[in-house]
Amino acid sequence: MKRPLLESIKLASDIKKLNMDQLEELCKELRDEIIEKVSETGGHLASNLGAVELTVALHYVFDSPNDPIIWDVGHQCYAHKILTGRDITGIRTENGLSGFPKSAESEHDLFVAGHASTSISAALGIAQAKKIKNDDHSVIAVVGDGASSGGMIFEAMNNAGRSMTNLIVVLNDNEMSISPNVGAMAKYLADIRSKEGYFKIKDNVRHTFEKSMVLRKTVLPALRTVKTFFKDMFYSSNTFEHFGFMYLGPIDGHNLEILIRTLRRAQHVKRPVLVHINTLKGKGYEPAEKNPSKFHGVAPFDKNSGELKKEPGYSFSSAFGDSLCRLAEKDDKICAITAAMADGTGLRDFSEKYPNRFFDVGIAEEHAMTFAAGLAAGGMKPVFAVYSTFLQRAYDQVLHDASIEPKHVVIGVDRAGIVGGDGETHQGTFDIPILTSIPGMTVYSPANYEELDDDLSSAFSKDGVFAVRYPRDTEKIVPKKFERKYSDFDYFEGSNNCLIITYGRLFVEAAFAAEETGASVLKLGKVFPIEHELIEIAKNYKNIFFFEESVEYGSIAEHFGTLLYKNGFDGKYSINCVFGFVPHMNVEKAMKLHGLDRESMKNAVKEALK
Amino acid sequence: MKRPLLESIKLASDIKKLNMDQLEELCKELRDEIIEKVSETGGHLASNLGAVELTVALHYVFDSPNDPIIWDVGHQCYAHKILTGRDITGIRTENGLSGFPKSAESEHDLFVAGHASTSISAALGIAQAKKIKNDDHSVIAVVGDGASSGGMIFEAMNNAGRSMTNLIVVLNDNEMSISPNVGAMAKYLADIRSKEGYFKIKDNVRHTFEKSMVLRKTVLPALRTVKTFFKDMFYSSNTFEHFGFMYLGPIDGHNLEILIRTLRRAQHVKRPVLVHINTLKGKGYEPAEKNPSKFHGVAPFDKNSGELKKEPGYSFSSAFGDSLCRLAEKDDKICAITAAMADGTGLRDFSEKYPNRFFDVGIAEEHAMTFAAGLAAGGMKPVFAVYSTFLQRAYDQVLHDASIEPKHVVIGVDRAGIVGGDGETHQGTFDIPILTSIPGMTVYSPANYEELDDDLSSAFSKDGVFAVRYPRDTEKIVPKKFERKYSDFDYFEGSNNCLIITYGRLFVEAAFAAEETGASVLKLGKVFPIEHELIEIAKNYKNIFFFEESVEYGSIAEHFGTLLYKNGFDGKYSINCVFGFVPHMNVEKAMKLHGLDRESMKNAVKEALK
Repeated sequence: MKRPLLESIKLASDIKKLNMDQLEELCKELRDEIIEKVSETGGHLASNLGAVELTVALHYVFDSPNDPIIWDVGHQCYAHKILTGRDITGIRTENGLSGFPKSAESEHDLFVAGHASTSISAALGIAQAKKIKNDDHSVIAVVGDGASSGGMIFEAMNNAGRSMTNLIVVLNDNEMSISPNVGAMAKYLADIRSKEGYFKIKDNVRHTFEKSMVLRKTVLPALRTVKTFFKDMFYSSNTFEHFGFMYLGPIDGHNLEILIRTLRRAQHVKRPVLVHINTLKGKGYEPAEKNPSKFHGVAPFDKNSGELKKEPGYSFSSAFGDSLCRLAEKDDKICAITAAMADGTGLRDFSEKYPNRFFDVGIAEEHAMTFAAGLAAGGMKPVFAVYSTFLQRAYDQVLHDASIEPKHVVIGVDRAGIVGGDGETHQGTFDIPILTSIPGMTVYSPANYEELDDDLSSAFSKDGVFAVRYPRDTEKIVPKKFERKYSDFDYFEGSNNCLIITYGRLFVEAAFAAEETGASVLKLGKVFPIEHELIEIAKNYKNIFFFEESVEYGSIAEHFGTLLYKNGFDGKYSINCVFGFVPHMNVEKAMKLHGLDRESMKNAVKEALK
Repeated sequence: MKRPLLESIKLASDIKKLNMDQLEELCKELRDEIIEKVSETGGHLASNLGAVELTVALHYVFDSPNDPIIWDVGHQCYAHKILTGRDITGIRTENGLSGFPKSAESEHDLFVAGHASTSISAALGIAQAKKIKNDDHSVIAVVGDGASSGGMIFEAMNNAGRSMTNLIVVLNDNEMSISPNVGAMAKYLADIRSKEGYFKIKDNVRHTFEKSMVLRKTVLPALRTVKTFFKDMFYSSNTFEHFGFMYLGPIDGHNLEILIRTLRRAQHVKRPVLVHINTLKGKGYEPAEKNPSKFHGVAPFDKNSGELKKEPGYSFSSAFGDSLCRLAEKDDKICAITAAMADGTGLRDFSEKYPNRFFDVGIAEEHAMTFAAGLAAGGMKPVFAVYSTFLQRAYDQVLHDASIEPKHVVIGVDRAGIVGGDGETHQGTFDIPILTSIPGMTVYSPANYEELDDDLSSAFSKDGVFAVRYPRDTEKIVPKKFERKYSDFDYFEGSNNCLIITYGRLFVEAAFAAEETGASVLKLGKVFPIEHELIEIAKNYKNIFFFEESVEYGSIAEHFGTLLYKNGFDGKYSINCVFGFVPHMNVEKAMKLHGLDRESMKNAVKEALK
């Protein structure tokens, strides 16, 4: 399809040559391009469509990368990628762009993103650096309302207001985070939204009061500390102003003229400004406007009908949700917590069946974990379901609040291991090192849905801190010989002196590799702590191969190997783990690259048998 | 000294039998007791003296532990410990109480604390549990203004306001966190403080408006959306009310009558209430009132003069600050960041010499780390100086914001290793596992001030993410033979086939042990990544002993041992690490208990030589 305006833009600055009609046309072309390309590969659609006019207006008014734009979470940066000379064909696939801002791709992506609520902290750092260097350019952070429930936003705002930097925070308010938004901040934003041109009202009221002697005479006597009270009412009654920001908004985030005018105003104010814009997720594509949640992160779809090319199947997340519902039916102490991921973590059914025991705390993993520990201190049995990558945010809360004086809490660690298209920022390859560093921690890693169910039952029936980790995947069939017996581990004896030790979804790979090579397999279910019984089994082998979806330092393999050594093991072992930060590519490809697929396993065993 | 009222209180509920005069007298006795006992052992003084009336009022109005009191940070809970039947003699020493809330000590300490900003999350969890169980009791969280800069407070408030629980948040506003308070929240609190009886004013204004038809007629036409605007002005103009809390305050936190009346009012409101009280740190003890910062966490002192029994000496923290000042003189890109610990981390001089390159972000470690990464993205060379235990809060920020696309940032990890009297919640024994799990990380651990200086120089002169970790301690003298040569490591050859591998302050212990036993010593300076050269040296030994101030899983010892194994080492090695959460006791005792002192080292070598 022809997109003449898009094709005419070679540099980000070319956009400045367009007139208003052309800018409107450019937005249309951007939408078409995004819908077409995302329909092919999948990706974040609704948030990108909502941010088209904003992106155009930002590049029209500002001079990126001298005025850097920092995208919070980053899943709304596709138009920005296109306008800065990048082709989004094949985005999120191995040979395409990252779905998130990435410095390695472009100087226009100054700061990585993927996790929420970091943009203002990063932008403030850049703005302070500019201030030190007497560089007068603006730094723009674009934050969605969903991310505004994260504590880092508060911490950063608390520091930014007094900074006298040229920081501009654009609050892109689309009334919708990944799960429907929750909490006081969401309600507050809704209140503000309901006031068209809020800052204009304040101007009017101030004006009326200042003009009218009658009013001043009649109202003032009722006030004991007039000055500060008035100040609050007319100059600081907005929370963002309490933080020291100049507040502009709310404005229509799809009206280019208003956007440009407001951003220009922000550009000329030489102190922190918050620009509050209202946008519609999925804007301009009917299926996404109607169902923004489905089109938040979407698989390939038919762009005419909006139908998915392949419906999502039952997954470990679904199995987790179903198990939890079954357990909660029998035990009314079980509660579930999510940080804005009720759908992603499979908790939707639970939330409908047990609304008084379900808590969506918004994007706020630190709070979620300590809140869970609080529920446990109050006698409940909470599970906090969270993606492995986001659990990284709650390390101290797991350690300090849940573990020092152990509370009975369960962490459902979803998206553990390699995640695929989301790439570096979302890999679940660090939870094993951080969890196993915490004294008293028990970690399960089921290989199939039945084990997941058993592991959850175990975790709720015992006491202490438990993590149950499972991949973003579906259960796979194993050769008959490797079907489950299971009691925290399964041991399948082979015909030679080689032993594969693994867990989780890699077990399936190991089973196939073992079937062909005759190796034995030790499947860990409770992966940590490592019971002595397992060491005794492993010690009998000459060749042990660990395969694990984790970075190596702090892995189960490293812990197990050390225990083997301490217990007089005199054979050889090799550790096969994930190395470094894994870029976006499909899971099978990543597995192969990291030597975690069945072929690599077979080769390792065959090599040892030579 | 006789304290008859204190002695009459056996149960927390006994306080309810006292009249107002007796309660006042009780406060005096509590102060005397706290001053006397803390002068003997050291501990948190100023914050405890400031919270005496509050504590008495809370126990008078509420029924602990049915109405649990959750102390944020916990360093203000001494009066609470005394009133709940505990003797604070010897507090923070091995045979005394913990300086923080501890469930193991008393049912009145329902939730552990030590780190800041967790109390509302925990209290909300407990309150939700009570709501589920139809238990009508209150849950009280007591938060200082210093902790209110932490993002978890925001996350928790965002969830609490709409919770319809009997949660009471007491904001204990003493205008002073550990470092002078910073940021918008501090300024906002100061604004509120300046309005005596803020909530009364609002009542008056509302009353006036509602009564006067004239006012309504003249003002209303100026307002376009009257209802929400009025709502904001008179019902929600306070940020805490925006969060959904009923706001009561500010009140004098040393006036028992007002405290009791206000807390009673809060008790009867069946939804979340925020009680804002003003208190004076160090209240009732002149030296502490005059210098609350000195008496925040204080060493033993003469209670009459307020003089320390032993002046604090030069320490690794001081050396860090001095090195940084020297480096910053030559390199104007170096910036320093602290999370409310300018004094503790030795940055006071830097802050005075380079105010435009110094950033105290308040208690906000997550923001601090990402802000540092932002400064680096802007071309600066930031160091974030932070206690090891608080770095735990910024794990994701180190990984996601600083390391995925590596920024040139340095983390000054203070209080690394065992910390002594602060106990479990403050041990610096987890930074090695979490830092070494992050790809690309370099960790230094200097054994003396000169190495610290070298390590910082190295970190600033290279590129990437660096951590330099050092203990809460002073440099110690080593036997002449073990004096420094140094180039990322030092190797001291002994006379037998035993090798001690260690780093940081344990090197001194190793040197003495080696001198007596003839063992060799490999002192690591750059402890991670582990260079192959070190493996080659170590491989030549029959017996290797790792000694390390870290938990074992994820330790350098574990990583090094695994590398030894991979490289064909055929001798023996033993790992001597910190196990579990280390309770409060002096450092030497803890070292001995964990087998990390020179005697333990000698014994290990001698045993091997047998």
